[in-house]
This record gives sequence, structure tokens and C-alpha cells, in this order.
Amino acid sequence: MNITVIGGGVGCARFVKGVREHAQRSGRDHRIDVVVNTADDWWVSGLRIAPDHDSLLYALAGVNDTVRGWGRDDESERVAAELQVWGTAPEWFTLGDLDLGTHIARTAWLREGLSVSEVYRRLGARWDLGVTLHPATDAEIDTHVLIEGAEPIHFQEWWVRHRAHLPATGFAQRDIADAAPAPGALEAIARADVVLIAPSNPVVSVGPVLAVPGMRDALLAASAPVVGVSGIISGAVVRGMADVCLAAIGLETSAEAVGRHYGARATGGLLDGWLVDTSDAHAVDALAPAGLTARAVPLWMRDADSSARLAADALALAADVALAADAH
Amino acid sequence: MNITVIGGGVGCARFVKGVREHAQRSGRDHRIDVVVNTADDWWVSGLRIAPDHDSLLYALAGVNDTVRGWGRDDESERVAAELQVWGTAPEWFTLGDLDLGTHIARTAWLREGLSVSEVYRRLGARWDLGVTLHPATDAEIDTHVLIEGAEPIHFQEWWVRHRAHLPATGFAQRDIADAAPAPGALEAIARADVVLIAPSNPVVSVGPVLAVPGMRDALLAASAPVVGVSGIISGAVVRGMADVCLAAIGLETSAEAVGRHYGARATGGLLDGWLVDTSDAHAVDALAPAGLTARAVPLWMRDADSSARLAADALALAADVALAADAH
Repeated sequence: MNITVIGGGVGCARFVKGVREHAQRSGRDHRIDVVVNTADDWWVSGLRIAPDHDSLLYALAGVNDTVRGWGRDDESERVAAELQVWGTAPEWFTLGDLDLGTHIARTAWLREGLSVSEVYRRLGARWDLGVTLHPATDAEIDTHVLIEGAEPIHFQEWWVRHRAHLPATGFAQRDIADAAPAPGALEAIARADVVLIAPSNPVVSVGPVLAVPGMRDALLAASAPVVGVSGIISGAVVRGMADVCLAAIGLETSAEAVGRHYGARATGGLLDGWLVDTSDAHAVDALAPAGLTARAVPLWMRDADSSARLAADALALAADVALAADAH
Repeated sequence: MNITVIGGGVGCARFVKGVREHAQRSGRDHRIDVVVNTADDWWVSGLRIAPDHDSLLYALAGVNDTVRGWGRDDESERVAAELQVWGTAPEWFTLGDLDLGTHIARTAWLREGLSVSEVYRRLGARWDLGVTLHPATDAEIDTHVLIEGAEPIHFQEWWVRHRAHLPATGFAQRDIADAAPAPGALEAIARADVVLIAPSNPVVSVGPVLAVPGMRDALLAASAPVVGVSGIISGAVVRGMADVCLAAIGLETSAEAVGRHYGARATGGLLDGWLVDTSDAHAVDALAPAGLTARAVPLWMRDADSSARLAADALALAADVALAADAH
């Protein structure tokens, strides 16, 4: 079975680990692809940083710091201290030493002329991930945050330096009009038996992937059902600051609102199915009139078991909506 | 008094520290400039490395590793281990973590469009060096080593990986024909009261500086006497593998041969004076017929005292040859 996941960052990493765990337990052959958000990538100190990708890479490789929730395990920050003295890296952005190794290698390869996709392949080849990561696009589409009465700033500055406290009026991916989906992403979507939208930030992680010209059409043209998993539980974000991002684009922080935001395929949206938490079961009936098949299951990913169970629930919903469509 | 030193690397660093020590002890105002060899710079893992400059910077700042003789003190190599796993840095070239901070900052600034001279200024501004470092040129003139029956390789690969054991037939600085002296280097030479050639490798450290088109003319046009200090003592190199480099260009490893190689100004060469070690005193008489005023003094720089004394001896010889020229 070919499973293609869309998302990025830590929530996506946990979910994809669940998908991989479920696939391994099932004993059947699975191919798992992830189309990764690249819009929170940025240049700092002459190096290309790719937070959403690296969170996935490190988590799938089992070398992530599970206590902090991001970065490499057993990390140190000797180089970053030097970069701050030299004035090329801000003190508000952590650059671990092992992590910098990744950034240096990535930048070296990009400077050699490799595409982002090729860099993903080289980075992913180090470990037996059991998952193939693809950038949404090979183009640079760094998110900039629109702020009332001020110049737009890079998403990382807004997110990390200002902890999303500067009032944002919107998000824009620069040069995205000229971007195209990476070939590997298009292939992964085309061959998918099911597409899963990870419980990542809908605005700044999933949103930019879908905003790459051609990506939404590729998803709608694919034969696979598309099932999303809410990153909002009981009106709150599981981790991160997605609530601020949702508010900035005028959306309520609720599983129902995010479901409506992605939209039902029947009404021109993206989703065939939508998983909400059991605590948000009321959204199932509320979304039915909008043509969206929602289902309430436990969404908390506490460990390998609960993550694998969530993956199984998402695949089951995909199978059910596909069957219903066939019957229809 | 304006003292301008030409050279690069560890031998030069010790000598310049001696010049600085002597100047401080003298109690008079001195301005010390160093025109630094850039031909052993290279790109590795997407980063620009400048070994001769960094040896000077770290030694003058007092943050160098005096046991190993190169690199930063209290160094670690966590990032380099990652780069070797990623395959972007060879295992035979040591990249310390603190040192990598310098390389990352330098590369970031170069990528921003700063000249090598501007990068030197930024790096030098971190500490109160009491010395201004200038690149010989802002152009990239990386030395490549010519090897019989094989393609030329970068100097660092020959020097570090092969420990200079691959038989070299010559050295070539790529694109040096299009290079020009950096403005700061020209100014330092023009305002110098004395120019000192450091006891650096004559072939691959001092040689490329002099080979930058316009550099030799600038030295000959300057009013300052030029005094060189031999890096060869008793027919052997003090440190490094200069003997192999000298042999590759057909020169004997002796203070006398290197003196002849630089040549006396009277016969179209560079030098007004040449300091050899007391153990090489025989060279003084041997070089006289070639028009070169040589003097034998203790050349070993064991500590601050002996280095400062050597600097004083070099300045004294410069004063004497200038007086003799005036009398003439």
C-alpha cells in the first residue's frame, strides 16, 4: 500500500512514526512518502536551515531530542556561541553542533547545485528511515509574516524571536507564484493509495504545501482518498502556536474550523475524511452538512502504540470513504 | 614606526608576536601590518578556510592551541565528525568546532558580497590584536600542486592528506594572473618604514604573496628597506615541510639558498637584508658577492623574549642597510 503524508515538523514526525509503526506491525508491504513543508526554511549565517524537514529526519532516525522536542539528541552549542560572537547568528535561534553539521552539509550540496530534492535524498540515505521525504517544492518559498504598521519579517524571526507575539495580519510565501511541486512529491501523490494530511500547523506547515501552484490540482486529480488529522484538540493546539496562526487568518482554534478550512472535496475542498478527537465528537455532526465525513477517535500521540492506532484509524477512515465513493 | 610583515601561518605568527612584543617593550608608537598569504585558502564542505590567516589571528588573539601548534585552544570536533558522516569533509582535514565558527562566519560574509579584506577586518575586530592583517589579494588564488603523471591537486590535499609525500614538480596559483594586491596590502607597503619577510615557507607562503601581479613592484617602489628572516636553520626547516617545497622547485634547503632565491635588491631581487641563524653564519660571507647583506643572529623563537629579540635584530639590520644606502 502506498501512503503519502503531507505536513512538516514535530507533529508530523510523530504521526509518520505512527504510520511506519502501523505498517511494520501489519506485516504487509507499505511504501510511505512524506511531502514536507519547506516554507519555514531560512538562511542564517550563510547556512540553509530546514526545521520541518530536520524534525522529521531526526525523529524517524531516532536521533531526535525527545525531552526538548526538537533538534538532535546529546546536543551541544559550541559553534553557535562563536557565531553569536561573530554576529552572524542571532542569540534567539538555537543552532546545535550536530544540527549544524546537517546545515553545513545541506548548504554545501545546494551551493554545488543540487536541488532540495536531491539534498533530501542524501540526508535521508544516512539512516534506514523506512520513509521517503520529499520537499513540497525545490523553490525557495520562505514564509514572511505580515505585521500591521511594520515591514514583513521572516517567519522564523516572528515564531522564534517574538514567540508569535507580534500581531500578524497574514502570511506570505515569497516567490511562491513561480514555484512548482517537486517531481518526487508529484509522483508520491500520483501513486498514493491514500493521502494523509498530518496534524501539523494548518496555516504555516500544511498551508504552504497546498499553496504551491499545481499541488492542490495534483491532490484532486489523484485517485487516492485524502484524509486529514486535526492538530487541534478540545479547542487547543497540541503543541506549538498554531492558534495564533489560525487567528491571524481569521479562523477559530477548533477541529471543526480547521476541517472547514481544508474543506470537503464535494464542495471544492480537499478532504474526503477528517479525524477529530473524541473530545471534539460534536464536530462530526456539525461538519456533515458541509459534506465532510468526520470521525472522532483518540488523537493524542503519547507513544508508539497510540500513534500507530491513530494511523490505523486514519487509514480505516480512508478505506471507508473510498468504499462509500465507489458505492455512490 | 610603521612595520609591515609579509608571510602567513604559524612561523609568521610567532614572528609577528615577537614584533608586537618588541614594539610594546620599546614604549614607542608602532603600527604593525601583516600582508598575509591567501594561497593556501580552500573551499571544503561549502566553507572557505584560510589557514595562514587563522593561524595569525588565533595566535595574536592568544586563543591558539600552543600544544598542537595550530587551531583554537580548548577545541572539540563534534561537527567535523558529522561532516565526515555526511561525506562533505574529508577525514584527513581537521575542522575544530570553534574553528568552524570562524569558517561559517567568514563564508557567510563572503556570500553576502564582502571582500576578503573586509572579512579580515571583521574577524580581526573581535580582539585587540595590536596588529592589522591584510590579505595579499582579494582574489581567489588557491595553490594547486603539479604532480608528474597526474592531475594537479589542491595544495591542502597534497599538504595535509598526502603529507607532501606525492612527488611535486611545481606549484601554481590558479587565476593569479587576474589577481591584484588588496588595497590595504598596498597601503601597508607604501607607508612602511620597514618591510620584514617572515620566516614562513618561501615557496607556498611568501612565494604566492610576491607572485600577485603588482606586489613585487609595490615592494621595490616603496621607500622602506626589505629584510627577510630565514625559516631554514642548519639546513632544516624549523617546522612544517618547506624542504619538500624547496626541493620541488629545485632549491636546496639552506638559509643561503633561500636568500639567493629572494635575491638582493642590487641584483634585481627583493632583499636589502637577510637574517640567518648563527649556525648558518657561513652564509653571510657566501652571500656577500651576490650583493646581499646577511647577518647571523639566533633565529629560534622559543618564547616571547627570543621572538622579541629576533624582531629587534631584524629592525636593526633594516636600519643599518638603510643607513648604508643613504651613505652610498
